[in-house]
Amino acid sequence: MYSETVELNHLMRTPGEWLRGTGPHAEIVMSSRIRLARNLKAYRFPHWATKRELAQVRHNAERAAAQSPHIVTAVTLHLENLSFVDRQMLVERHLISREHAEGQVAERAVVIGDQEMIAVMVNEEDHLRVQVLRSGLSLKEAWAIAEELDEQLERHLVYAFSSQWGYLTCCPTNVGTGVRASAMLHLPCLVMTKQIGRVLHAMTKLGLTARGLYGEGTESTGNFFQISNQVSLGFGEAEIVDKLELLVGQVVEQERNARESVMRGTREALEDRIWRAYGTLKSAHIITSQETTDLLSLVRLGVDVGTLPTLSRSVVNALLVTTQPAHLQKLEGRALASHERDVRRAELLRNQLATSGGE
Amino acid sequence: MYSETVELNHLMRTPGEWLRGTGPHAEIVMSSRIRLARNLKAYRFPHWATKRELAQVRHNAERAAAQSPHIVTAVTLHLENLSFVDRQMLVERHLISREHAEGQVAERAVVIGDQEMIAVMVNEEDHLRVQVLRSGLSLKEAWAIAEELDEQLERHLVYAFSSQWGYLTCCPTNVGTGVRASAMLHLPCLVMTKQIGRVLHAMTKLGLTARGLYGEGTESTGNFFQISNQVSLGFGEAEIVDKLELLVGQVVEQERNARESVMRGTREALEDRIWRAYGTLKSAHIITSQETTDLLSLVRLGVDVGTLPTLSRSVVNALLVTTQPAHLQKLEGRALASHERDVRRAELLRNQLATSGGE
Repeated sequence: MYSETVELNHLMRTPGEWLRGTGPHAEIVMSSRIRLARNLKAYRFPHWATKRELAQVRHNAERAAAQSPHIVTAVTLHLENLSFVDRQMLVERHLISREHAEGQVAERAVVIGDQEMIAVMVNEEDHLRVQVLRSGLSLKEAWAIAEELDEQLERHLVYAFSSQWGYLTCCPTNVGTGVRASAMLHLPCLVMTKQIGRVLHAMTKLGLTARGLYGEGTESTGNFFQISNQVSLGFGEAEIVDKLELLVGQVVEQERNARESVMRGTREALEDRIWRAYGTLKSAHIITSQETTDLLSLVRLGVDVGTLPTLSRSVVNALLVTTQPAHLQKLEGRALASHERDVRRAELLRNQLATSGGE
Repeated sequence: MYSETVELNHLMRTPGEWLRGTGPHAEIVMSSRIRLARNLKAYRFPHWATKRELAQVRHNAERAAAQSPHIVTAVTLHLENLSFVDRQMLVERHLISREHAEGQVAERAVVIGDQEMIAVMVNEEDHLRVQVLRSGLSLKEAWAIAEELDEQLERHLVYAFSSQWGYLTCCPTNVGTGVRASAMLHLPCLVMTKQIGRVLHAMTKLGLTARGLYGEGTESTGNFFQISNQVSLGFGEAEIVDKLELLVGQVVEQERNARESVMRGTREALEDRIWRAYGTLKSAHIITSQETTDLLSLVRLGVDVGTLPTLSRSVVNALLVTTQPAHLQKLEGRALASHERDVRRAELLRNQLATSGGE
């Protein structure tokens, strides 16, 4: 238990690679994610398995992961050893799902690779949920890593696989390749110009799903949208990834056009909003998570369009995560009531932005 | 004409004494003002007089004023030689009334004393309107100066005076002493706690009038209220001044209590609002006059309650004047459309506040 807290505290100190704000189209695509759902043939799906079976799954999964060159420097965390806040912190870092944090299944774990680029959830809905997360529009790159990792794991694990259906998963929407690919997009100007509804509708018609910052069931905040493929049955992996990369590229182009149009038409007014948002973040003494995300969204746009040239995108990206409730509580080392968090959050923002230039 | 522009430009460079932010109760009482209405016996009231009569009034008034020790270093401005913007600038500095700036009466003038503490309007509604303006709650002090000045002028001028009615004036409400006393109060916490209506209502019942920042017919902005005596007939001068000073003192006490109550109950929330207002003023790139006044009001409160300890009240007071439209246009040296003013105003605020500390 002690070592896991140490590991977690260590993890907190540096933001994950996906927050670096680099990679293709990083001014619009925050991150790209590949997720594989895999199950072990010898055991029942987590929701039907006994604690003993789940313990075996975890043991086998961890042993297999430890042998993958991709996750040599991995951190392994058993969720029963983590506090509520610790688990929420992992959700805020996009390392585990909300279901995994809150779930009732025993013997849950997560194996986290170097710079948080890889995360393997054990005993979530499926025995294994392998995630590769990269900054920018890097779906193909992420897929290449996921594929290698998958092969490395399969050397030590026997997957549940049907020659007819492909990889078997708990939820039918994952059966087949078991692949879900997604990209987190920052689309402030499609929102401002009221084109976002049309764009998301078009995505849905093409078989994609749009969600908020924290995945399924969450509203979009701060103009962040997670776009992912909807079904995995009947398509090849590379095909799924290619298709998503292509479509995301089109959305990127539309946001880029919207930014140009806004900058052409109402540059002054937009820049005023950006500066005011920045001023508020640097001045407030009480600020909610929602307002923070909304203002950081404007500030991030300000970095991208050149209004705030000395502020870095990675600082803004990191603040989107470190201003979240669990991160604030970890930083403080104790539970904080909602109002206390609003005060600490404002303090953190003032400190971080004061030392990050941007004038 | 040329010399008057030079005089005006010189005037602009330093704020008037009344903006210094010192004097009794200066954290609540911005300024105290005594105004005397006087007419010359030999001439008809300005609205009925010929241009020739008005010219003689002006000549006599200026000659008399020049001999008063109180206005030795005076600037004399003939309004026909001033542009619209110049005249508006004098209104913004509270040196002439809006009526005097816009009026149709010929041969209008204003004689402005050292540090703008004295202003004598010639050929406004009455032949002479003598104003003494001081920072803080200094009505008695201002009255003492006004009285001396009045005597000095009367040595050279024959006033229209009736032993029955007192000083004769154009408007019956000024007949008698011809004195109007007023104080400009900053009452943000009476507004916040919704007590302002009751307080102003009580003032009205006691024979006082409450107005906005620019006198008669103007709405209150930035929580500034000008409180003045309503009638001058039937009261002695000293009585009028004493009564107002007493009543204003009571309002000051009520605002002080309201501030303590707000600071006791919701200090954190108030300070957050103050910091945000300050942050917005330092960050905005487009800002209207109205928003500026509202935000400066909060920042002024922040100086008074100790939230912004390194910022000085005089800087905030001066900004309330220099961010006004005519001042901005004088600074720029040309006419500015409304939107341009909003941009220049934001620029001025950023520059002034960046160099005034307050962090």
